[in-house]
Amino acid sequence: MGRQFHFSLITFAVNFYLLMKKYNFYSGPSILPKEVFEQSSKAVLELDNIGLSLIEISHRSKEFMDILEEAKSLVKELLGIGDEYQVLFLQGGASMQFCMIPFNLLGEGETAAYLETGVWSKKAIKEAKMFGNVDIVASSADKNFSHIPKQYTIPSTAKYFHITTNNTIYGSQLQKMPESPVPMIGDMSSDIFSRRFDASKFDMIYAGAQKNMGPSGVTLVVLKESLLGKVKRQIPTMLDYNTHIKNGSLFNTPCTFAIYVSMLTMRWLKSKGGVAAIEKINEEKAQKLYAEIDRNSLFEGVVAKEDRSRMNITWVAKKPESEEAFAKFAKDNGCIGIKGHRSAGGFRASLYNAMPVEGVNKLIEVMQEFEKKNG
Amino acid sequence: MGRQFHFSLITFAVNFYLLMKKYNFYSGPSILPKEVFEQSSKAVLELDNIGLSLIEISHRSKEFMDILEEAKSLVKELLGIGDEYQVLFLQGGASMQFCMIPFNLLGEGETAAYLETGVWSKKAIKEAKMFGNVDIVASSADKNFSHIPKQYTIPSTAKYFHITTNNTIYGSQLQKMPESPVPMIGDMSSDIFSRRFDASKFDMIYAGAQKNMGPSGVTLVVLKESLLGKVKRQIPTMLDYNTHIKNGSLFNTPCTFAIYVSMLTMRWLKSKGGVAAIEKINEEKAQKLYAEIDRNSLFEGVVAKEDRSRMNITWVAKKPESEEAFAKFAKDNGCIGIKGHRSAGGFRASLYNAMPVEGVNKLIEVMQEFEKKNG
Repeated sequence: MGRQFHFSLITFAVNFYLLMKKYNFYSGPSILPKEVFEQSSKAVLELDNIGLSLIEISHRSKEFMDILEEAKSLVKELLGIGDEYQVLFLQGGASMQFCMIPFNLLGEGETAAYLETGVWSKKAIKEAKMFGNVDIVASSADKNFSHIPKQYTIPSTAKYFHITTNNTIYGSQLQKMPESPVPMIGDMSSDIFSRRFDASKFDMIYAGAQKNMGPSGVTLVVLKESLLGKVKRQIPTMLDYNTHIKNGSLFNTPCTFAIYVSMLTMRWLKSKGGVAAIEKINEEKAQKLYAEIDRNSLFEGVVAKEDRSRMNITWVAKKPESEEAFAKFAKDNGCIGIKGHRSAGGFRASLYNAMPVEGVNKLIEVMQEFEKKNG
Repeated sequence: MGRQFHFSLITFAVNFYLLMKKYNFYSGPSILPKEVFEQSSKAVLELDNIGLSLIEISHRSKEFMDILEEAKSLVKELLGIGDEYQVLFLQGGASMQFCMIPFNLLGEGETAAYLETGVWSKKAIKEAKMFGNVDIVASSADKNFSHIPKQYTIPSTAKYFHITTNNTIYGSQLQKMPESPVPMIGDMSSDIFSRRFDASKFDMIYAGAQKNMGPSGVTLVVLKESLLGKVKRQIPTMLDYNTHIKNGSLFNTPCTFAIYVSMLTMRWLKSKGGVAAIEKINEEKAQKLYAEIDRNSLFEGVVAKEDRSRMNITWVAKKPESEEAFAKFAKDNGCIGIKGHRSAGGFRASLYNAMPVEGVNKLIEVMQEFEKKNG
């Protein structure tokens, strides 16, 4: 009984609805599994029969502490890491990490190494320069970030080496994580939990949740404590990783809803077989769509083939004047959010974990129909 | 049709449920109106029949931009302010504002004035000291923050004067806003939208949402642009108010869910007659509960009568050994979250806007029953 009375009818309605579903290709916030929408919707009315809504309970209540613990342990399990890493749920997005990282790790006069592969790494570099020296070990800026530089040397005197593992805007991805002689930090906002990788190569990994992990409002930070305590400057309390480590992400009120929904999304991923299982599906989805881009006479890819992202698939129309028409045609046919980012133009389809193969099939069908009519 | 099919049954179930409702006295995250729970729950399944969930749409989609615009305009309407103020929705809570304020407004060697009235102002002062000099114009720390200091001078050379208008932990509140010769900044996290006040006395007002405004995950900042651009230090992009002003709170992905739910909560408040109407009800609820605390032979208030908060009502048991028994008795009788904050002890009942008079009546009944059994 209680607020959940007849909730099964909602489940029925959702299933009915899915028959005429729109496919959401937004780059973030983005599609989440339908089970997660259903469970979160229910929890906003009432959390697990406790007589209160998820969003009205204290972040220090036993109920929320249990959610936070489960979220932490799912992060560790899905990334295959142990207690040598701290798992934090912060606010402010990856953009806040761009300044927190050098604030905590880069002393005045010291140098940090960055690989420049797109808008997000550029932004990270900009913040780091306020705190110390930045050595850009390689950049693909001169080719509009259409590839991932591979020949570069990471100075062994750098305090850390920072990479963006997937470039959401340009649609490129590091297929192989680099070997670094200094602590490596990865912004994995748009490909965390999408593929297997050796997390032990990293001293820190961070990700805004709003792609594969959950809704917007929470930022995952996974780091080794050995990184900290080495700079001399005073760090404002909220920007100091130690504050959040000591208080288990509860120094102040976190975004309880986003942490809960992220926990549900990670639970869903685990139930699907975890990262290894989803990686295969992600590979299949991406290869299908790239095959169509390469085949279709109207379109072409923009990223070097060996660097193509499995998460954010980008392409352009060979005749730029037809871009608007295709964007409209796709939208009218239920493919939402395929317009490219304003700094890249063209098209982008984000194929995050929760995007079903049917969504990709639908988009391919739409591209083929458009070709028939305009080819 | 669509995901909202049969949602009216949920509404029925919720109403049924309310008959045996628990009353939520948590200090934050805290109770919100039941209509807001229902509407938010629905939007997590599907937003306004658009075929997508609120939490999967882009923060740059037309749908979300409309939500953000409505939220901004409701803030202005409820506070009675015009375009001379910027309205921002940020992340990190009031705690992040404790450092952003001096980062942006207090140059090295300059002085800011602070009124010290509790844990939150102490925390704000601690951060300000990292950036410049702090003049604590008055403090009630020596009396465990049981009153609001009233005799003090604000130096006219201070860059700004900072107050906490309501002290969530100790249960005290500024009944009258001070007159300040310098720009006044108010942390109104726990009493914004609960009572009328002259907002034009302030150059900046901020509030973590998770009391009267919405769920956790968003922080409201209202400020005059004339405050900015006066310090010489470099400010990290995410910590610079100008970044968020220029980008209309969309420099990076905000917490879309919390902004939406805050907008709904403000819509609800407006529909109830706005701040003037809720102020009367808040006054009635608080006076009722204080009357019982003063009458009941087992309890006593802790804050000077003239400084008592209408939002967070605090009291102690005259026999400290009976505190645990009363806490359990209240919980068993459906009054949730009345344990005092760990720095204050005793009891605290938070009577935010969404707490119905029936909740207060219930708590009074429970206090009277406890007295009968233990008096």
